[in-house]
Amino acid sequence: MEPTSSSIGQEHDLQNGIGSKKKTDVTDIDSIERIFESKKVPPWQSQLTLRAFVVSFILGILFTFIVMKLNLTTGIIPSLNVSAGLLGFFFVKTWTKFLDRSGLLTQPFTRQENTVIQTCVVASSGIAFSGGFGSYLFGMSERIAKQSTEANSAQNIKNPSIGWMIAFLFIVSFLGLLSVVPLRKIMIIDFKLIYPSGTATAHLINSFHTPQGAKLAKKQVRTLGRFFSFSFLWGFFQWFFTGGDDCGFASFPSLGLEAYKNKFYFDFSATYVGVGMICPYLINVSLLVGAILSWGIMWPLINEKKGDWYPADLPSNSLHGLQDVTKSEPITGNSSPDLPSLSYDDQKRTRVFLKDQIPTWIAIIGYLIIAIASVVALPHIFHQLKWYYIAAIYVFAPALAFCNAYGCGLTDWSLASTYGKLAIFVIGAWAGGSNGGVLAGLAACGVMMNIVSTASDLSQDFKTGYMTLASPRSMFVSQVIGTAMGCIISPCVFWLFYKAFDDLGIPGSEYPAPYALIYRNMAILGTQGFSTLPHKCLTLCYAFFALAIVVNGVRDLAGKNIARFIPIPMAMAIPFYIGGYFAIDMCVGSLILFVWSKVNKAKAAAFGPAVASGLICGDGIWTLPSSVLALAGVNPPICMKFLSRSTNIRVDKFLG
Amino acid sequence: MEPTSSSIGQEHDLQNGIGSKKKTDVTDIDSIERIFESKKVPPWQSQLTLRAFVVSFILGILFTFIVMKLNLTTGIIPSLNVSAGLLGFFFVKTWTKFLDRSGLLTQPFTRQENTVIQTCVVASSGIAFSGGFGSYLFGMSERIAKQSTEANSAQNIKNPSIGWMIAFLFIVSFLGLLSVVPLRKIMIIDFKLIYPSGTATAHLINSFHTPQGAKLAKKQVRTLGRFFSFSFLWGFFQWFFTGGDDCGFASFPSLGLEAYKNKFYFDFSATYVGVGMICPYLINVSLLVGAILSWGIMWPLINEKKGDWYPADLPSNSLHGLQDVTKSEPITGNSSPDLPSLSYDDQKRTRVFLKDQIPTWIAIIGYLIIAIASVVALPHIFHQLKWYYIAAIYVFAPALAFCNAYGCGLTDWSLASTYGKLAIFVIGAWAGGSNGGVLAGLAACGVMMNIVSTASDLSQDFKTGYMTLASPRSMFVSQVIGTAMGCIISPCVFWLFYKAFDDLGIPGSEYPAPYALIYRNMAILGTQGFSTLPHKCLTLCYAFFALAIVVNGVRDLAGKNIARFIPIPMAMAIPFYIGGYFAIDMCVGSLILFVWSKVNKAKAAAFGPAVASGLICGDGIWTLPSSVLALAGVNPPICMKFLSRSTNIRVDKFLG
Repeated sequence: MEPTSSSIGQEHDLQNGIGSKKKTDVTDIDSIERIFESKKVPPWQSQLTLRAFVVSFILGILFTFIVMKLNLTTGIIPSLNVSAGLLGFFFVKTWTKFLDRSGLLTQPFTRQENTVIQTCVVASSGIAFSGGFGSYLFGMSERIAKQSTEANSAQNIKNPSIGWMIAFLFIVSFLGLLSVVPLRKIMIIDFKLIYPSGTATAHLINSFHTPQGAKLAKKQVRTLGRFFSFSFLWGFFQWFFTGGDDCGFASFPSLGLEAYKNKFYFDFSATYVGVGMICPYLINVSLLVGAILSWGIMWPLINEKKGDWYPADLPSNSLHGLQDVTKSEPITGNSSPDLPSLSYDDQKRTRVFLKDQIPTWIAIIGYLIIAIASVVALPHIFHQLKWYYIAAIYVFAPALAFCNAYGCGLTDWSLASTYGKLAIFVIGAWAGGSNGGVLAGLAACGVMMNIVSTASDLSQDFKTGYMTLASPRSMFVSQVIGTAMGCIISPCVFWLFYKAFDDLGIPGSEYPAPYALIYRNMAILGTQGFSTLPHKCLTLCYAFFALAIVVNGVRDLAGKNIARFIPIPMAMAIPFYIGGYFAIDMCVGSLILFVWSKVNKAKAAAFGPAVASGLICGDGIWTLPSSVLALAGVNPPICMKFLSRSTNIRVDKFLG
Repeated sequence: MEPTSSSIGQEHDLQNGIGSKKKTDVTDIDSIERIFESKKVPPWQSQLTLRAFVVSFILGILFTFIVMKLNLTTGIIPSLNVSAGLLGFFFVKTWTKFLDRSGLLTQPFTRQENTVIQTCVVASSGIAFSGGFGSYLFGMSERIAKQSTEANSAQNIKNPSIGWMIAFLFIVSFLGLLSVVPLRKIMIIDFKLIYPSGTATAHLINSFHTPQGAKLAKKQVRTLGRFFSFSFLWGFFQWFFTGGDDCGFASFPSLGLEAYKNKFYFDFSATYVGVGMICPYLINVSLLVGAILSWGIMWPLINEKKGDWYPADLPSNSLHGLQDVTKSEPITGNSSPDLPSLSYDDQKRTRVFLKDQIPTWIAIIGYLIIAIASVVALPHIFHQLKWYYIAAIYVFAPALAFCNAYGCGLTDWSLASTYGKLAIFVIGAWAGGSNGGVLAGLAACGVMMNIVSTASDLSQDFKTGYMTLASPRSMFVSQVIGTAMGCIISPCVFWLFYKAFDDLGIPGSEYPAPYALIYRNMAILGTQGFSTLPHKCLTLCYAFFALAIVVNGVRDLAGKNIARFIPIPMAMAIPFYIGGYFAIDMCVGSLILFVWSKVNKAKAAAFGPAVASGLICGDGIWTLPSSVLALAGVNPPICMKFLSRSTNIRVDKFLG
């Protein structure tokens, strides 16, 4: 359940003044939209076809099964969004080809329709993750409660049942969607955020639908295809060597074992190298600075306060200690974009994006209605969750949804589960252990996670839609339908597992659902109030909050030439939580693009996005077969292990 | 003491009809010798400068120390020839620059002089390996004899002493040199053999001395430099992960653990990928066919005869069993070259190469005189070695020297130690255990190895000389001087170690000299005669001998168009002994060049040799610091280990 990267799309000039170095005018060299000019964009209603939703429904069920099974086994969910785009294309294309041959085709398959499918599938299968069936929701059950010694009284327990789960999801899942709608324009048009995997998906979808005859475009498509294959095969090759924990290239201590322990290493992830190629240099540098500041300087320093700031006898991943400090920094990013003069592509896309408006007042009224409905309804499902807790969450949620969507737009990381944990602590502490605070905390986590996770996922999709000229209105409808599908599919699939396997959630069984207990324990910790936080934790939190605001203020006030050397606090904060390895991946991507630009600027500008998208999408698609392999119980045969020399001598002796 | 690749040089069109696909007329695109036309080639006497020999002497001592220490520790000797070329350049260049600035420079530093240095250093430090101080020579000593239960009577023991060692080396070391001289023209001019590392060294030396102003040449030099650095850094990076046996990239089971056990894997060696790029496709394919035939088909089949053809309870690397079968195949290669029309470079080089002749009669008379001298003298050193054994060796030696030089020319592998082992068996069996056969076998090994090893090393150097327009006469003189230096330096350095470390050769000590006992045990086995060979061993040997002659006959009789699809037996035989991994490396090199040629034929032709030479030389130079690290006792910190999933589970449990 680590935060994983979300959706997929193309193009990369842009981003509000930051990293203006990368504005290499790809679109002047070769405009995507000029190539597609011959293809009419269908009106938004025609983008929503029956076949699209049939395919989405099938894929939604498929992906929900995959995500659910992973939820209940390892708890680590890869991003399946590229697979959604690709399989959607494959299904509909086969179908339309078949119809075309029989002369029955009435409506050609467009890239807009493709985007609609991918959005719908993402919305529906996303709920299998944000629904918390492997974490907070299942953590409420008696079966998990029994595994913990504390807080297993009846008032802190709620066993799963298909009725209330569907109701709960219907109440909370649409709020995220509605909070994204007004942000849409700010994120995509004003801030011109990148959404690396959204961009990569759009690139992929565009490449599928590129009209015949465009020469450079053909070359780009071929480049994308080549790196797609490379990245896929690389993922496949890596798989063979991951037969165990900490095995394989993803655990390669490429900078030494000491650095590896502090999460500084290059993990050979094609996805993040690709993301690094799409993100502006300043983002990558900010990430690296953040990684060095946290894992390089702060954690080792705080580690020395062991026994002083927090108990010395905690294991290094205990929630009471070091890792806790890393979890409370909702730093807002910078704003006030300097709009660069728009390229042809951007002009055309902006026009389409703004044409089919969804009035903001509809979103606001919708949000208010659902918020009020859920303030009324949720306490009926969880009587421990008082109406004012819910009201409080709904006041802050849009701001946090914005933060998450913004951070994801910059760096491709969605920190939904982090915000969920924040809700556990705050609401748990507010309610207190004796008043069913554990259950209140877990339920609050669900409310928060759904809103925040949906916000970032759908913003990625909006980016994809922007770049494929899909109408925001058709996207919105598709998201509503997809979310509704998910609210029904996910609980049903979970119910199937729950009824079929009696030992679901029991450690050591086939489906241990490891994160369910972890979330419950966090909730128990939360009910003990802020006093359980390590010494100086809140002080640090306030200090960094203030610092982030100051840095952003300076960035905004300083001239462009100075601002582009000041790191972005939002990007710096992410490695605090995750570690430095992905920042290193992304810097490698940056470096590749930088060197390439020095060698051949025109080529790097024309083919850089294609290479990056190929890397991201190939790795993304590999998650599908790798998930299937995991579900089928096929384990990788080899473990590539990294041992220190002295340990190796012991191991060699042991193995004889 | 595995066979390692020898010397270094540039250019790659050529090779007697085989692999005509690679004749991409590099020289037509850009002739090296036209670029060097402005530079006068000094007469052969002027190529032999005092400074060259002073530098050679210093480097000779340096490399002898390195090789000797490796001899006595691991027994695995890397090729140091690139280092010789590079350090030679560096020393003399610094010296001449210094003189030039002071206005005292009388003779500029030429590439011919550079080649002379590299030849001299190779000749002198080569004796540290072929002198057998870590193998046959030290295996005669009492200290090693005591470690074996058999054949440790006085007549099978001869303790080292500086006097007889120098005498022995002086008697046997020049024979190899003299047997190469007549072969020189056949190998280099007639057969146009490649000598991959000789070619790479020549390329490196040429690139150091490229005159200003040549544009394409500059680009090539830059390409060489880039891949040189890459390959060096790659070697450096790999080093960190080799902290133990079977650790690191060289043990990467890239094709699976089962294939790895059968020595089929890509070992990430930049050297052999480079060699594969220089060798013609047919060689690489022949190697692969040989690897599949031996390690893929024959060994597994013979393995099933366990208990029938040979005892079932032998360990898999016992000399009585499977590995023994692999050691007796002196298959001669094909001949009858079809001379392609010569390029400008080839014409010029051939002219220079043939200008300063060393009359064949001098070589033959020299050979006869030394042979007679040693037939007379050697029995005085080793009275167990009868004069007729020596005479017999000297009759066959030139043919085997030819075989080894030919095989090395095709594939870069020198199998000197294999021929040495052959001598141990044959002479040991002839003499018999009771007549001091062990000592006779070991001494015979020395005679054979010196001749055969020198033949391949110096042929590589002649190739380098050919491509740098160094006169064969100056090369010959340099080799004679270098050999003489080596005959004195090596025993002295060994003596130093022997006197300084009382436990030299004792297992578990700092200098265990592991191969000394292995060679002695082989000699003991040899004295038991051919009856100890596994069942059908000789039958197989005769069958393959006949088959190789038939295949070569067919190759010669068939038209060029058919011949280029028939694998070359000589190339096929090498993986029988070594395993398939380097064949896979070389095929990867081939594949890279093949794809490159498809994408951009002109570029691949112009830059392919530079890339290949860069890869070979960078990796080659890395052996120097890595040897120094090993000698200084600095061990790599990490072991990258490959375990099967089940073993990994056990190891994880063990490590807790």
